[in-house]
This record gives sequence, C-alpha cells and structure tokens, in this order.
Amino acid sequence: MPCPDFTKYHDKSIRQRCIFSTIWLLLLCTSTIIMAFKTSISPIRWENDQLVLLDQRFLPARLDDYVCDTLEQAAQGIADLVVRGAPAIGITAAYAVYLGYRQHLEDSSYDLDAALKQLESARPTAVNLAWAVREQQRLLDSTSGDASQALLNNAQRIHQQDFTDNIRMGDYAAELIEPGSSVLTHCNAGALATAGYGTALGVIRSAFAQHKLDQVFASETRPWMQGLRLTAWELAADNIPVTLIIEGAASSLFARQQIDWVIVGADRICANGDVINKVGTANLALLARHYGVKFMVTAPTSTIDMHTANGADVEIENRSAQEILGENYAGNEKVTAWNPVFDVTDADWVNAIVTEKGVILQPDRENIRQQMES
Amino acid sequence: MPCPDFTKYHDKSIRQRCIFSTIWLLLLCTSTIIMAFKTSISPIRWENDQLVLLDQRFLPARLDDYVCDTLEQAAQGIADLVVRGAPAIGITAAYAVYLGYRQHLEDSSYDLDAALKQLESARPTAVNLAWAVREQQRLLDSTSGDASQALLNNAQRIHQQDFTDNIRMGDYAAELIEPGSSVLTHCNAGALATAGYGTALGVIRSAFAQHKLDQVFASETRPWMQGLRLTAWELAADNIPVTLIIEGAASSLFARQQIDWVIVGADRICANGDVINKVGTANLALLARHYGVKFMVTAPTSTIDMHTANGADVEIENRSAQEILGENYAGNEKVTAWNPVFDVTDADWVNAIVTEKGVILQPDRENIRQQMES
Repeated sequence: MPCPDFTKYHDKSIRQRCIFSTIWLLLLCTSTIIMAFKTSISPIRWENDQLVLLDQRFLPARLDDYVCDTLEQAAQGIADLVVRGAPAIGITAAYAVYLGYRQHLEDSSYDLDAALKQLESARPTAVNLAWAVREQQRLLDSTSGDASQALLNNAQRIHQQDFTDNIRMGDYAAELIEPGSSVLTHCNAGALATAGYGTALGVIRSAFAQHKLDQVFASETRPWMQGLRLTAWELAADNIPVTLIIEGAASSLFARQQIDWVIVGADRICANGDVINKVGTANLALLARHYGVKFMVTAPTSTIDMHTANGADVEIENRSAQEILGENYAGNEKVTAWNPVFDVTDADWVNAIVTEKGVILQPDRENIRQQMES
Repeated sequence: MPCPDFTKYHDKSIRQRCIFSTIWLLLLCTSTIIMAFKTSISPIRWENDQLVLLDQRFLPARLDDYVCDTLEQAAQGIADLVVRGAPAIGITAAYAVYLGYRQHLEDSSYDLDAALKQLESARPTAVNLAWAVREQQRLLDSTSGDASQALLNNAQRIHQQDFTDNIRMGDYAAELIEPGSSVLTHCNAGALATAGYGTALGVIRSAFAQHKLDQVFASETRPWMQGLRLTAWELAADNIPVTLIIEGAASSLFARQQIDWVIVGADRICANGDVINKVGTANLALLARHYGVKFMVTAPTSTIDMHTANGADVEIENRSAQEILGENYAGNEKVTAWNPVFDVTDADWVNAIVTEKGVILQPDRENIRQQMES
C-alpha cells in the first residue's frame, strides 16, 4: 500500500499536501510493518494507481491478481467472488467509488450515480458494501472541487481502520477463550475477508499467538468451499494447524471432540443481535447450543445495521442453482437447486458478539445500542 | 435377473431342480415386471453368471457397469463405493459369498474363510454386510455337498426380498404422510442403495405415486455427493421433481419452506433405536426437532442390530482426509481433515422407524424388540 501519487491532481496547496503526504506515508509504513508481522496475507492492495485484488476464486491452487482500473471491474469482482467477506467487500467498494469518480473526471458523460447504484447491488446482503458507498458518497457531497484525493484517502483510511479494528477485536475476543480450547470456524472470516487479519480468524490468530488453542477445525463451506480453499490456506500460511470437516460432521464433532467455541464472522448484524452470515452458520449455532458449545460472532461495528430491526427484515441473496448442480442435469427440468447464500442466526443462540469496541455478552437490542453509542 | 443356469452343476435330482427352476423363473419374471413398473433403476444384476453392479462413482455423468467374477472384485467394489447403501451392500455381499464359494470349488487352495473376513471388513459400519455374510455362512454350514446353487438362490432370495420389503415399507410409511407435504432426504437411501426401490426414496416414490408430495428436497451430501449425484438422478429418472440444497441450508429450509418430514435410511439401527446413518443425519435430526419437523427412518429389519445396545457402541468408519481435501494441500502437514462417514442420531430425535414389518412410533428398546419378535 504505497503512498498515493498526489502530483497528478490539480493541487493549489502543494505544501500542505506534502506535509499530509509525509504523515500518511509514515502511518502506512508503520501499519504495513504491523500487518506483515501479524499475517502474511494481503487480499486488497492499492498499487500503481490501481486496485489489486487477490483473486480468491482460484485459491489455493493459484495466486492470481485481479486488477481494477474501473468501478465496473471492481463491482464485477465483488459479484463474481473475486473478493468476498463483508469487510473486504466494503474496502473494495470504497476504492471502487474513487475509481468511478476518476472515470467521471476523465469523461463527464460517465453517470457516477448510476454506477454507484450498480456497485451497491453487486451483493445485496453484506451491509458493509452499502456502508462504504454511503461513507464515500457523504464525503463526495461535502467536498467542493476535486474530491479525488479525499476519496482515495478515505478508502485507504477505511482499509487501514479495518486492519487495526480486527487486531483490537481479536485481542478482546481472545480474552474469552480459555487455554487448551478447541474451536470450529465456518466459511472464511479471515485475512482474506478483511483488510488482512480477519474477524473470526483474527480471534484464532490472537488466541493461537497466546498459546490458548489446542485444535482449530474449519468447515469446508459449500458450495464455494471458502473453508477448504481460503481458511485452511491462510491458517496454514500463518503456521496454524487446521483440520477440515464437512458441514454434515458438525454434530459428530461437537459430540466427540470437546469443542469450546464456534467462532464466525458476520455479513450483517441486526439491531436486535440477529446475525446474517454464510449459510450454515445457523445450523452450527443451533447444534452448538444443543451440545453446550459456545457461539461467538466477531465483526466490526460497520457490520452492525441499526436500521434493520431483526433477521426477518433482511433480503437473503439467492445465487444460481448451477453453483450447486455444476454441469449435472443441464436441461433436466426435474432437478433444480435452492441456493441461499446466507442464513439468520437468532440472537438468542449467540453467546458473544465482539467488535472493535469490545465484547457484548448475550446480545440484545439494548446492549448492542449501548455499544454502538459508546 | 434371468434364471440361473443349473446345468453346469452336478445335479442328482434333475427333475426336482427343473420344477424348482420353473417356479423360480415365474417368480423372477413377476418381480421383474413389478420392479420395472415401480422404478427404472437396477443397481445390482445377476447376468451371465456374473455379478453386475451399476458403478455409482461416476453417476450421473456415466452409467458404467462394474462386473464381478470374484469375491475380491465385489469386496473392492464395496470398499470403493461402486455400490453403497446398507441394503445394496448386503445383497452384493450375499452374491460375493457365492462367488467366493465358486472360486473355492475351482481351486481348493482358495481360503474361503479368510476371503469372507476380508469381505466383511470392506465397510465396517453397515450391519447388512455382516448380516448377509452370516446368512450365507449359515447356509453353507448346513449344506452337505455342493452348496453353489443354494448360495446363489439365497443371494437371489435376499435380493428379491429386499425389493418387496422396500415396497411394503414405502406403503406403510406413506400412510404417515399427509397430502400436500414437503420432505427432505439426505444421502441416497434409494433404488441405488437397495435392490431397486429404496428405503427413504421408496417412501418418497410411494407418497409421490399417491399424490401426497408437494416438494422433495435432497441434501447434496458431502463429500461423495450421493444426494446430488444419485438421489437427484434416480428421482429425475422416475419423473419425481427434486430440489437440491447444500447441507448448510437445512436450518434456512426448515425456517422458510414448511418441511413436514425428514426421511432417511439407516446403515444400522441399535436395539434402543439409535440410528447410525450417513454423516449429517444427526445434524438434520437435531435441526428438525428445533423447527418442529418430523423425522423418519426407513430400513429393513436386517438393518436393526439387536446385538448393539446403543449408538455409543458402534465403530464409526473414518475415511481418508483426501476425500475432503482432494488435491489441495498435498504434503502440507498444517492442513488435515477429519472424515467420519456416519453419525449417531439419538432415538429420542426420531419420530418413526418404518420397516417391512410396520411403523414404530417414538422408537425405544421395548417397541423395537416387539417388532423384531413379531
């Protein structure tokens, strides 16, 4: 994440910008050193005036970059799961707004408002996407003249903030974990889903560094295999041993392996504490409750949507049947598939929500509101 | 399933054999007509003095036959999942004993006892395998002279009996299903897992024929995808529409789609009613209970193991991590997988067990014993 190149913009106050630029550079260098120390994975980079995404569709077989020069490329990358995970989608969207604004500057016929709407609709469920677009929109509305630099800076601030928030969150959450614990995580709420440390995997990174974890299990997470392809890959890359299970083995795992916590991220947390996360999460929460296994959700406060009262109000994204059926039964009308991407975990099934602001035990409307206002 | 060729055996009572053969032929023709009428699928055939298995590993892409001339080929087929499903494994094993006996007749140095042990160990969890071997062994022990024909007849009787039992079971179970119901099934307890009608899918076939089913859902069933590859294929082949879900979507399905029954088969039912079935079954049973969805297990009485008190006493087969990891992480010691093939569904979570003898509601040690002795 090198310092942005300010020279290409039409600055009136060169000196002021240079001072700002130097401070920015120092901050970025420091955080880059921290990031490199904490994990080896950078899913989103701003390089050579381009947004570079690590293409997560082909991991762990291939480490390809997906380079975006335009808002549309970034929106396509979000829709096609090049980048996924609510915080990472939010960060990508923040950069995408800057890219769109740049396109508008270069070609005044470019309809930025329409482009932003298209960007927002790339994934309907994750609240961070709308949140990031709104944050940038607000900045755009309040900036007179060329907003390029302000938008890019803000995207980088959001990017950086997510990383430091994740570390803070990991440290808060690790305090809940007793030494000698075994945990199960679902999907990938890791470095790859965030700026580079992770929400659920951030907790696992922090707890592992504190020698508190005996075993880490990850569910493979159909149909995209984020657990198998991404979580296992990034934990192994950070030398954290991990054992995969199929989702069907959760009951067996809880019955036999003395799991202490299920730890997941979230795509949206409603005002009452209902959690929208990767489909399969609600299964695990219900099973965990039966077996006396505790259930933790880790997410930045940007994932908490105070405007949505509860999970019943959330539009759950359905993706194509083909993601499940593959090439089988093409043209056979007798066979189809129902492919919701997220599910709703009732707040009652959650023992703790952890954000960058701290721990909420037994989440409900009241204690969530209190933390959001703190 | 044509009439066996008796002429190659050294018969003393040709006339008696001819009469028997004629009756046998009539019975087989009748049942073949019923089978063709009830379903289009024949996973196990006895043809040209060979055991022919429909190779289920490549379905639905390819319909290959796997031909067995020896016990070892049949055992390998069982171990490699060419044929799977407790009843189908039992039928295959019954034919395999005959094949082994034939090998022993052709070469007296062939160690039949050792071969039978090898056969029994091909899949340790399904009780029908041991049951079928024991049935044949008993016949062998009680037959003086050449037991070939008796063993082949008995294999064909077991084969045929399974089919008629399935139809009876399907009819009993369909009585429990209200018109307008939606059901979910797991794995493949279908024609492909039995002689050709199915336990769980037999119920679905019967209930569908009675116009009682609104929707049939099937879970894809990782890691072998029996739901996606086999259940969907055989239901579509019989013109029964089916919607696939990933296992992680079970909670969402129960919450949104008004499912009435989960219907599964079993690999073993313990004396107290605990059910050993494909991993993922216990998840569904627990989730079903939470959502008020009823849970039915259908299996022939040969699957009920009165010698095993409860699920805790059953050895659960673990298969290789590679089945889950595939080619990912080869040689990377940080990533492994835990791959139990079955799980234990507590008898308390089961609303009904249906066998060829009838329905057991709220199964327990007492009402199971009563049905077994009836």
